[in-house]
Amino acid sequence: MTERLRVASVGLGRWAKVIAGAVQRSSHLDLVSCFSRQEAARTEFAGTYACRSAATLEELLGDPGVDALLVTVPNDAHADTIERAARAGKHVFVEKPIAASLEDGLRIARVVAETGVRVMVGHSARMLAGSREIKRMLGAGELGQIALVETNFSNDRALELTPDKWRADPERNPGGPLMQLAVHNFDVVGYLLGPAASVVAQTARLHTRVQVPDVTTALVRLDSGPIAYFGSSWVSAAAYAVRLYGTKANVHLEVDFRYWGRGDQVDAHSVLRVEPNGGDPFLVKLTPADMYRDELDELAAAVRENRPTEVGPEVGLANLVLVHACLRSAEEGREVRLAEVWPSGALAGNRP
Amino acid sequence: MTERLRVASVGLGRWAKVIAGAVQRSSHLDLVSCFSRQEAARTEFAGTYACRSAATLEELLGDPGVDALLVTVPNDAHADTIERAARAGKHVFVEKPIAASLEDGLRIARVVAETGVRVMVGHSARMLAGSREIKRMLGAGELGQIALVETNFSNDRALELTPDKWRADPERNPGGPLMQLAVHNFDVVGYLLGPAASVVAQTARLHTRVQVPDVTTALVRLDSGPIAYFGSSWVSAAAYAVRLYGTKANVHLEVDFRYWGRGDQVDAHSVLRVEPNGGDPFLVKLTPADMYRDELDELAAAVRENRPTEVGPEVGLANLVLVHACLRSAEEGREVRLAEVWPSGALAGNRP
Repeated sequence: MTERLRVASVGLGRWAKVIAGAVQRSSHLDLVSCFSRQEAARTEFAGTYACRSAATLEELLGDPGVDALLVTVPNDAHADTIERAARAGKHVFVEKPIAASLEDGLRIARVVAETGVRVMVGHSARMLAGSREIKRMLGAGELGQIALVETNFSNDRALELTPDKWRADPERNPGGPLMQLAVHNFDVVGYLLGPAASVVAQTARLHTRVQVPDVTTALVRLDSGPIAYFGSSWVSAAAYAVRLYGTKANVHLEVDFRYWGRGDQVDAHSVLRVEPNGGDPFLVKLTPADMYRDELDELAAAVRENRPTEVGPEVGLANLVLVHACLRSAEEGREVRLAEVWPSGALAGNRP
Repeated sequence: MTERLRVASVGLGRWAKVIAGAVQRSSHLDLVSCFSRQEAARTEFAGTYACRSAATLEELLGDPGVDALLVTVPNDAHADTIERAARAGKHVFVEKPIAASLEDGLRIARVVAETGVRVMVGHSARMLAGSREIKRMLGAGELGQIALVETNFSNDRALELTPDKWRADPERNPGGPLMQLAVHNFDVVGYLLGPAASVVAQTARLHTRVQVPDVTTALVRLDSGPIAYFGSSWVSAAAYAVRLYGTKANVHLEVDFRYWGRGDQVDAHSVLRVEPNGGDPFLVKLTPADMYRDELDELAAAVRENRPTEVGPEVGLANLVLVHACLRSAEEGREVRLAEVWPSGALAGNRP
């Protein structure tokens, strides 16, 4: 490969453009090609980003000038796309969740292990400046011991969803906002405090006209002790928050969702408030990062340095296992241990 | 009775002084007497508040110059005290929760129904100016349809608790912060959105040295549809928050816990933020009330007008049923319907 990672976008919807914008802000990647089954979409995309386009995925995978794919196809098409990419020796950035089904998630983890390509899963929320600062605070002991975590990620997408969309199909997108939104915070909490042990969940379908749940909630007991709450509504005003309650201080990260799609602006529209035990609350000044650029740079660095990425398939799979554990808990009305849900034959090194 | 309700404090600990201060701010009650088994405590209290003291509860109950008792004895002593008061024809203000056990809660509801005295349970949080404003917004449709509610009430009391305190005893205070703190928000959510249908809960004992849980969480499915989360830590920096997520707007009430004991100051140290769907967030100016004065004034008005109080025994019992449903859910690792927990023989008019 050349010095800069040469990437090609696959699946050219709204989110592909967010990611392509992040490539433009990076000095470690070049967007060189693209593919979508819709000819009009790839022509437009190639024009906008001044890159080649491929008429078929096969053609793209045969292009020796492409080092890695940026995969933003629907969740249930991730596994096919990644398997073909990996077998063609292409590295992969893939949007979260790693897949919709556990079988697909496991298949991805296996083919990646087998082929040795590098994969970065787009759990971008851990790369918010606020998430990084909370991680630093935890490491420095500034919060004391943690008892409780609360997270929320909500927006109103399910008010607009129509039955023809894959996100509206309970077969293709089980869990609705649990799979699409809460999964970000599953990753953030895993990043901050380690793996989950068990979960109880409640979901409801209240105000949407499509057949997915539109509000999901979960209480996760972490291996390390604290309990973490994950709330997600798909039918309300937007919200993104992560709150940790510690013996020395509580900390609240709140992000203005209107800037969620703007990696270069989102940290400037985030507030990190510390509430010391008994003391006056204060705001922490965040040094802006760029979560979408940074996750792509991480893939480029992992390829360059021949090492795993920060968010590889095993992390993506762990987050997906938690989604499915929530769904089982909500369906069966009982506490579900994560170990019950892990697919048999999971890779060595994966939990449990 | 005279024009002003003549009240006597029973159980003269820290909270009795908070309530006595509220009596002093009211123009509808006079604090005329007090009783504690500790002679030193009642002498000091009588001196501070310029009132009589009684050497025994019997003496206090025989005092024709006392219309009502202000009961702040430990939760598991509420039923005995209230039963004796009611049979002596005294009205009652009692701190939340109405009792520790369901049996006691039911006993209180029965004796109150039988004797016809007026009872106000101290679920003060619904009387915060912010709670009243959220109720108004809901009624006016300003939030649209609600999908999700989140509440937190936390402080660090369990870091200091020693095993000799009743609050530290799992027999006398089952649930720890669930019984002492979250129960406030059970009442607030019931006030705002109506009764609960089922619950799943997780609790843990992490950082306290005593034997009660120190972090409790619950997901409650409401009869009206939304899911409500209730978090409570007893081992972290303090927090009080109520958050509603609606199709038109989200609303966040945050109260500075350092003013929780100051009914006349707490609303001035509360923030109510509205986040309209797609629009700019704004703060709502709250007209300060005084939750402790107002709950006592409500008792005085109910007596004067010969009507039930806003928070009578049946409301207190419903909140207590939810506490016990959470405990059962956490213990059994399953969803518990509220109907399973209601004591048999509950009064007509009570749920279910």
